[in-house]
Amino acid sequence: MRQPCAGRGFAGIIANMKFCSACGSDRIEFRIPEGDSLPRYVCSACGTIHYQNPKVVVGCIPEWGGRVLLCKRAIEPRHGLWTVPAGFLENAETVVAGAARETLEEANARVEVLSPYTMISLPNINQIYLIFRARLLDLDFGPGAESLEVRLYDEHEIPWEELAFRTVTRTLRNYFLDRKTGAFPTRVSTLERRLREPAHYAPR
Amino acid sequence: MRQPCAGRGFAGIIANMKFCSACGSDRIEFRIPEGDSLPRYVCSACGTIHYQNPKVVVGCIPEWGGRVLLCKRAIEPRHGLWTVPAGFLENAETVVAGAARETLEEANARVEVLSPYTMISLPNINQIYLIFRARLLDLDFGPGAESLEVRLYDEHEIPWEELAFRTVTRTLRNYFLDRKTGAFPTRVSTLERRLREPAHYAPR
Repeated sequence: MRQPCAGRGFAGIIANMKFCSACGSDRIEFRIPEGDSLPRYVCSACGTIHYQNPKVVVGCIPEWGGRVLLCKRAIEPRHGLWTVPAGFLENAETVVAGAARETLEEANARVEVLSPYTMISLPNINQIYLIFRARLLDLDFGPGAESLEVRLYDEHEIPWEELAFRTVTRTLRNYFLDRKTGAFPTRVSTLERRLREPAHYAPR
Repeated sequence: MRQPCAGRGFAGIIANMKFCSACGSDRIEFRIPEGDSLPRYVCSACGTIHYQNPKVVVGCIPEWGGRVLLCKRAIEPRHGLWTVPAGFLENAETVVAGAARETLEEANARVEVLSPYTMISLPNINQIYLIFRARLLDLDFGPGAESLEVRLYDEHEIPWEELAFRTVTRTLRNYFLDRKTGAFPTRVSTLERRLREPAHYAPR
């Protein structure tokens, strides 16, 4: 199920902690605890240190013959743009189970999750993408609540200009390049904050 | 830097939320929000949904010739037992930077992080281990604050009975098996809760 990005993903990168969730005090400081090296939210009343860590987004590239399954987003951000099925890994869940669950939720599609393919760090928004290759098990799929449309794409049909996220573009570009060789090593990379392009670079 | 396990790792798997960190109210319910499928901590006063997700542990197998670098833990849990350098990924950090940082902190060792090797889900404690192969850059290493001792081990010297975590045992076992073939695919697996062994299985 979708966990909203607002306030934890794109907007507020570090959750804004005003009160201690352990004791209710408002004496919250953002400082480096003794023996630590990074600032944390620390409660001056009860001493609790509130650690915050990156979230994992899991998903897959569902393959059927030479085609891959993409979903047109019915939700923000990037409503109306295309993505591979993916979403936040949940507590008590394995990465493989999470990737399969997201595919079921977004595309009503059953997959056998194969190997890990892209591992993309997004340090600016505290996320790690883990996208797997997967084998679509049947053609009985269709849009889930978070999708407007779900369909299989041949390589030459991929809507490159209408992909929702740079993680998706990078994953699919690598995928079709690697497919020519038949080898799919796990590809590790980083996406930094997108720089605002100068006006004269704007697409015409 | 180490983030303690107590209360967020091994002991309290789901952080116990008594007060809303946004508004300070104690009207916290653990229930399935509308449109969701999993229970979350929800504030009945201000409506904030407090999502909790798995943490990522990053680390590496620092290689020097045929040997690998291990650290003897100076901290609980598993004080005095051996591990590969690893720890919680921090916000604003890439997986590669995190693995290198942990190696520097625990072993004062500089590495070039190579390819991702094991990806182990621990759904019972809401953790994902990402262990990379890495090339040790020099022999100028030594115990950091969290280690009692740091040394290079040949395969036949590995203290299998004194390894700190099952993730480490599994990673090293696979590593030495794969080394015989020279191919190191990213190995994805799951470690479930360890069952308490019957008394007659106890080591003598």
